[in-house]
Amino acid sequence: MPFTPTDYDPYDFANRRHIGPSPSEMADMLSVLGTESLEALIDETVPQSIRQEEPLDWDAPLSEAELIFRMRQVASENKVLTSLIGQGYHGTVTPPAIQRNIFENPAWYTAYTPYQPEISQGRLEALLNFQTMVSDLTGLPVANASLLDEATACAEAMTMARRVAKSKAGAFFVDEGCHPQNIAVMRTRAEPLGIELIVGNPDDLDPAKVFGAIFQYPGTHGELRDVTDLCAALHEAQAIAVVSADPMALTLLKEPGAMGADIAVGSTQRFGVPMGYGGPHAAYMAAKDEMKRAMPGRIVGVSVDSHGNRAYRLALQTREQHIRREKATSNVCTAQALLAVMAGFFAVFHGPEGLKAIAQRIHAKTVRLAKGLAEAGFTVGPEHFFDTITVHVGAAQAALLKSAVDEGVNLRKIGTDRIGITLDECTRPGNIEAVWRAFGIDRQDDADHAEYRLPEGLIRQTSYLQHDVFHMNRAESEMMRYMRRLSDRDLALDRAMIPLGSCTMKLNAAVEMMPLSWREFANIHPFAPADQTEGYAKLIADLSDRLCDVTGYDAISMQPNSGAQGEYAGLLTIAAWHRAKGEGERNVCLIPMSAHGTNPASAQMVGWKVVTVKSAANGDIDLEDFRAKAEAAGDRLAGCMITYPSTHGVFEETVREVCDITHRHGGQVYIDGANMNAMVGLSRPGDLGGDVSHLNLHKTFCIPHGGGGPGMGPIGVKAHLAPHLPGHPETGGSEGPVSATPYGSPSLLPISWAYCLMMGGEGITQATRVAIFNANYIAKRLEGAYKVLYTGPTGRIAHECILDVRPFEASAGVTVEDIAKRLIDCGFHAPTMSWPVAGTLMVEPTESETKAELDRFCDAMLAIREEIRDIEEGRIDRADNPLKNAPHTMEDLVRDWSRPYSREQGCFPPGAFRVDKYWPPVNRVDNAYGDRNLVCTCPPLSDYAEAAE
Amino acid sequence: MPFTPTDYDPYDFANRRHIGPSPSEMADMLSVLGTESLEALIDETVPQSIRQEEPLDWDAPLSEAELIFRMRQVASENKVLTSLIGQGYHGTVTPPAIQRNIFENPAWYTAYTPYQPEISQGRLEALLNFQTMVSDLTGLPVANASLLDEATACAEAMTMARRVAKSKAGAFFVDEGCHPQNIAVMRTRAEPLGIELIVGNPDDLDPAKVFGAIFQYPGTHGELRDVTDLCAALHEAQAIAVVSADPMALTLLKEPGAMGADIAVGSTQRFGVPMGYGGPHAAYMAAKDEMKRAMPGRIVGVSVDSHGNRAYRLALQTREQHIRREKATSNVCTAQALLAVMAGFFAVFHGPEGLKAIAQRIHAKTVRLAKGLAEAGFTVGPEHFFDTITVHVGAAQAALLKSAVDEGVNLRKIGTDRIGITLDECTRPGNIEAVWRAFGIDRQDDADHAEYRLPEGLIRQTSYLQHDVFHMNRAESEMMRYMRRLSDRDLALDRAMIPLGSCTMKLNAAVEMMPLSWREFANIHPFAPADQTEGYAKLIADLSDRLCDVTGYDAISMQPNSGAQGEYAGLLTIAAWHRAKGEGERNVCLIPMSAHGTNPASAQMVGWKVVTVKSAANGDIDLEDFRAKAEAAGDRLAGCMITYPSTHGVFEETVREVCDITHRHGGQVYIDGANMNAMVGLSRPGDLGGDVSHLNLHKTFCIPHGGGGPGMGPIGVKAHLAPHLPGHPETGGSEGPVSATPYGSPSLLPISWAYCLMMGGEGITQATRVAIFNANYIAKRLEGAYKVLYTGPTGRIAHECILDVRPFEASAGVTVEDIAKRLIDCGFHAPTMSWPVAGTLMVEPTESETKAELDRFCDAMLAIREEIRDIEEGRIDRADNPLKNAPHTMEDLVRDWSRPYSREQGCFPPGAFRVDKYWPPVNRVDNAYGDRNLVCTCPPLSDYAEAAE
Repeated sequence: MPFTPTDYDPYDFANRRHIGPSPSEMADMLSVLGTESLEALIDETVPQSIRQEEPLDWDAPLSEAELIFRMRQVASENKVLTSLIGQGYHGTVTPPAIQRNIFENPAWYTAYTPYQPEISQGRLEALLNFQTMVSDLTGLPVANASLLDEATACAEAMTMARRVAKSKAGAFFVDEGCHPQNIAVMRTRAEPLGIELIVGNPDDLDPAKVFGAIFQYPGTHGELRDVTDLCAALHEAQAIAVVSADPMALTLLKEPGAMGADIAVGSTQRFGVPMGYGGPHAAYMAAKDEMKRAMPGRIVGVSVDSHGNRAYRLALQTREQHIRREKATSNVCTAQALLAVMAGFFAVFHGPEGLKAIAQRIHAKTVRLAKGLAEAGFTVGPEHFFDTITVHVGAAQAALLKSAVDEGVNLRKIGTDRIGITLDECTRPGNIEAVWRAFGIDRQDDADHAEYRLPEGLIRQTSYLQHDVFHMNRAESEMMRYMRRLSDRDLALDRAMIPLGSCTMKLNAAVEMMPLSWREFANIHPFAPADQTEGYAKLIADLSDRLCDVTGYDAISMQPNSGAQGEYAGLLTIAAWHRAKGEGERNVCLIPMSAHGTNPASAQMVGWKVVTVKSAANGDIDLEDFRAKAEAAGDRLAGCMITYPSTHGVFEETVREVCDITHRHGGQVYIDGANMNAMVGLSRPGDLGGDVSHLNLHKTFCIPHGGGGPGMGPIGVKAHLAPHLPGHPETGGSEGPVSATPYGSPSLLPISWAYCLMMGGEGITQATRVAIFNANYIAKRLEGAYKVLYTGPTGRIAHECILDVRPFEASAGVTVEDIAKRLIDCGFHAPTMSWPVAGTLMVEPTESETKAELDRFCDAMLAIREEIRDIEEGRIDRADNPLKNAPHTMEDLVRDWSRPYSREQGCFPPGAFRVDKYWPPVNRVDNAYGDRNLVCTCPPLSDYAEAAE
Repeated sequence: MPFTPTDYDPYDFANRRHIGPSPSEMADMLSVLGTESLEALIDETVPQSIRQEEPLDWDAPLSEAELIFRMRQVASENKVLTSLIGQGYHGTVTPPAIQRNIFENPAWYTAYTPYQPEISQGRLEALLNFQTMVSDLTGLPVANASLLDEATACAEAMTMARRVAKSKAGAFFVDEGCHPQNIAVMRTRAEPLGIELIVGNPDDLDPAKVFGAIFQYPGTHGELRDVTDLCAALHEAQAIAVVSADPMALTLLKEPGAMGADIAVGSTQRFGVPMGYGGPHAAYMAAKDEMKRAMPGRIVGVSVDSHGNRAYRLALQTREQHIRREKATSNVCTAQALLAVMAGFFAVFHGPEGLKAIAQRIHAKTVRLAKGLAEAGFTVGPEHFFDTITVHVGAAQAALLKSAVDEGVNLRKIGTDRIGITLDECTRPGNIEAVWRAFGIDRQDDADHAEYRLPEGLIRQTSYLQHDVFHMNRAESEMMRYMRRLSDRDLALDRAMIPLGSCTMKLNAAVEMMPLSWREFANIHPFAPADQTEGYAKLIADLSDRLCDVTGYDAISMQPNSGAQGEYAGLLTIAAWHRAKGEGERNVCLIPMSAHGTNPASAQMVGWKVVTVKSAANGDIDLEDFRAKAEAAGDRLAGCMITYPSTHGVFEETVREVCDITHRHGGQVYIDGANMNAMVGLSRPGDLGGDVSHLNLHKTFCIPHGGGGPGMGPIGVKAHLAPHLPGHPETGGSEGPVSATPYGSPSLLPISWAYCLMMGGEGITQATRVAIFNANYIAKRLEGAYKVLYTGPTGRIAHECILDVRPFEASAGVTVEDIAKRLIDCGFHAPTMSWPVAGTLMVEPTESETKAELDRFCDAMLAIREEIRDIEEGRIDRADNPLKNAPHTMEDLVRDWSRPYSREQGCFPPGAFRVDKYWPPVNRVDNAYGDRNLVCTCPPLSDYAEAAE
């Protein structure tokens, strides 16, 4: 035994990959904090009364290599057939340069939502490209920067139509040719809002009865209908026309705008984003100009910076739920930014000629397929189609579907006697021949044969994608460099901490991301037969079990695609339970003032009345007010929505009482899971009295933010609510769906599952402890310089803290925005601004950050405090100082420098890297200018020159 | 038929991905060039007399999606078993963060060799980390930045030993415990140099008879020998001791330096670089300080920049073959930079504790395996071992090997009665149990059992990897950001053209790189049974056929790992042919003055005498001189080495005559393939009279440079030479090998194959035309400003041109280096400096660059010419001007600016991006300082402060 084995685990993912402070750093930090151990700090911070009794009892954590091994086993249980099911999901070729340089590149996928435009110019430009593409293809002037999926986009269009229609009719007409999941989600959405849904044949539409109507284009069974006359009739009746259109088809077909549609929605999945068993991918919405302020979601717009240079930023933000709260009519918050960026680049890569050629090929293949079937005697419809045909097969349906699977192809079962077939970009001659073989036809595909079956009147007459960006040189060198340049303009987690309170910007580990690129996860149709998706089923079941362990709930629905969607789904579940008990009239929802803006918006969406509960002086829920309002609601009380730990960053000891009061009055408790990163392994919402919570898998469970989406907001519920979780037309259930597919965006789930497996129960709990520890370390280091607004009884905070910078406005004329922009000079994304308390900064470091990075941030904040002091004490001008002029750009450095401080002080404040300095590409962006002059598609250079004048 | 199909091919890889100028750009460029068509330009440029008769007749080009489909088919014909064969190749876990952020990141893999240190500080730091790791683990103070593979490193150590040994003995002793491929490559190398190789048991070594000796550690069959006494005895006899050591074993075992070794070599493959069926991976060499100037390969050293800040650069370059030419004793040129960077990061990731823990686990598993076998009655040796054991199985050998394969495990066949087993980082308990089952043993592995079998006296007593970089915080956030920061300091193809003459820095397309990450290519042992590598066999055969088509040769050897290695292999082939004809005395090699420095060095290595042939005034080979020297050599003429088109960038019309003369005197013609990018599809060296050529697959066929390697230099030969191509102990052949494995670095070959399949014959020919076209466009645009040194008879150049900047030294005091550094300010890597003509710049744009990028470069060059004119005409100071002060850094901008030109002019000359400006992290690097004060491991900060004073 010549030496003793080291007990160091070289593969310890929890300690070595995911948890920032090293053991020696942690020791130093403990001494700053004046606490002897991490456990002791947690004891001071997390009240004993809310702690969970048993630690998470999971298997030993897996190393990265073991994780990949396990993941491959599960992946191999998914069978990758050629899916020609259609119904809104299509095979697509992700250009490898996009896959490598965007989808698999942390510079893109670890970015946050571009609320700070100066450090987001790259992805804002990419999203503007997406909007321009959508606007051009649909023929409607205003487009947003993506929505969650086509079905929810249809539902958003429906509610938007109600907002903007002059018609006072109460019904909304839905083309029976809409995809079933679109109809189902609209139905879910309509019911609590009191909208009557009329599903039928457009020929039977009575415009006088509706405030709007939606048509699918092409229809789910392939039909192509010119809705020009219908749109006119609707307009006549002051109703709104919506078209849900496949953007690929729009490269050949008359665009919704040209038919008179007011709103167009659809999915850009087939623009280079793999099916992923249902998601994520980016839905779109475009509308007429006069409706832009009624449009949900984010809109990227063009503005100017303080030097008059063009700059992009999110436009019309005052429309959004975080501003409008109770007045909000949509809770849309997360978009699908990363996927929209990919779809936009798909268009940049291919340009109009390329997209058109792809669409033509798809169409020609479909014609050949149809011809082969028809010539063999099958009844094939419709007469005109783009990529989808329906074969009438009668009683042979089951046999033919099976025969197709035997040939490696999934087709769509329609009713009991028809089969749908939808071709796509990936369809090879061999696939067409396989379909023929499945139908008993021995025939060779003649790939050169191009014949068309588009109706003459529906041929597109207008051009699209004429902007320069879609006519870039398509050499890969140039494309690669464009992607690199855009990503270099942004600041994401791959360069610096993003200390965003309430947003949990933690590490998205490389190993967690890798399975997403595997075809066994990527190339699965959401409605593929269950025996082809056993790997997904296993993964979802195991992850659900773990999420139940973490939350103390009994069942999970993976369906919601964002946190806000999760809130909405949770409230729907509660409402359904009330209804089932015969208490459907309950409609009062208590929400504390400090709640996320999405909470009241979600409550509105289920038709509830929001009653706001006051905060006590210490930031906690005012228990007396809560009790009073619960009593006032009485048997109208539907429930309450609280956040735990509170959005003030404190573990409130009264949480159990809040739950008790609610339950006593027959209500249900929704605990918002936004702050779960401070609870996992320590405390369970289900134990505290919660009945439902959503989990932001894109926060707490490592799914990257992607620059503003994807997201995943599954909900956990207590057993009594489980029967009322969202259902889906494909998988059943008593309730309607909230998303287009049964599991939301399942191709993201390997990330969260991998995180759980590699951390183990103790590791994931340690992450929670360190998240709290890191936050308290920052609070401690900033003590004296900044006031922490709310703390627990022991003076500790949870995993985030609110820094009160309001006094500096009076003392030095410095606003919260000045500090946020000055942090960019220091190489940081700003903390959350003005939420939940106006004029403050909320800081959340997460467990992923090292002491060195935390110190860099604290050094920057302390230096900024000294700069403020210099203003306060008259050493530097109130109007011309590093804070007011922040952020500083390279241009400032080159320009003649006539400022009362040095270039050095301006551009290299403490925190800023020297050699590796991050330079924002623009100076401070003028938001008001951009809102006054809304431009949300790529402007030609000439426009821009005028605007700057 | 409502519309006509577009003839635009959205998937045209040749036109849309790989070829820079778009059709409209090309039209503009033609008018600048004053030629009506590309064909016409080619007719003016490439003499009819050397054109190939038939166009390349390949299948239709594949789209990226079809390529991936085909590649997956081929990949699936490789069977991935668990290979426990050892013999220098081991399973290893590539940390996913390294795979994503380095191996799959174009910022790393598209970089060039860091000859321009100012734009290479990131990879230079990464390589310095590698050198520090090697130096620490081996216990020897000087390490180089990698060699091609362990076997060639052994051969380099042998020749280095001969250079430095005071002993005049003629033999070199080789431990019979060396890996067979190491012995074989040393034998190949020794023979033409007249070195006698004594292979035997170290117990029988007679130090007086040898100038050096090499020992394998651990031995190929697992033995562990303390060579301390042998080293002392060798030193006594003034001979050199070399140890070829596994760096993983060195974390536990007494290091070569401590045993007295003078030189250590080995492979760092198992530090995170997949086996890849043999390569690429980085070999290492370390040596005593007094031998540093005799060491082959590149050495990264520490120096200072013009402001005294620390800066890295390649040290001691005057040792290298491109300087020493005929005096060179090694032709080592390409290293394995990308793989060395990965191995260095593997050590940074794991640190000394991690590496030690990994080694302990490997050892403990091996002990458990051995115990299980021994307890079942098998004879297992040796008594002490690290990771390798040998089982004596007698006549059961074949049955047991087959039984292992049936269990999914490859073991090593040793002789006729033994089986070798080597465990690694990836070995799971299931693998150990599978081996036992193969041996008929039903036993459970007890993963907790740790017992050791290392000899007491060989336990390592010293620490290693004590430098801070190996004790970084190992949180992935921190690691990811460190990788990003380093890559951001460098300029690679993902940001700008690299117009390096003779280096063909063309696009490495994303799709070409993807298969390298697939386990079916990555996780194959080089000596896996042939029925497991049928995919590789098919790929290699098809690629070889295509390379024959392109070159006009009849057979290809994929073995050489670099261009220089290809030259050497080609000359060995010629020499073997001469010998077979009984003309082994032929040893004169004619080489034109303008040849690549590796040419004469390679000729030296096969024991040939180099006779230099003059250039004519126009840069061509002086035909008279050639004829005279060939005649003088007479029947001593072995052959000639020429480059086509010439290194002066011209298609010489006399090439056929040069070949004829050589053949007439019984010599063979080696045509250096460095410039094949100007020939593919237009002209074939085999048709011109060449007998052998190498092809730089890392230039012409899209394998990325990786910051200075990997490379692949296969050779093509005429049929008569085919029997004399390099053989290999594993695959047979009459000649010895030049590389450790039969196919060099086969995991790179999917790149070149993909390129061929996606371009098709016409596409790849078009690439050649456009490469020539782009070069002529640059020459035309720079006309008047710079003199192009050599042109063909029609005034055109081939695919590159030499710009004569020598006059500016007299007229303005501006050197070629000043221009090169000024180009950095413009956002460009400099063209090739001072080669093949001192004081000039050689520019090669390749076909990948767009007109916009070519124009950006030309604008920069023209602006630089104006700056020179300002000096010439006295408008700006000769000593203090933008050229002399280049490159300018961000620091210059911040600092007080007291220069006779503006910040704007200094930092943003034409060509430079504005927002996307590339900033070099250091000012001009002082090469001489670094060579005077050679530091080639990471220095502590304190040292650096002293040095700067």
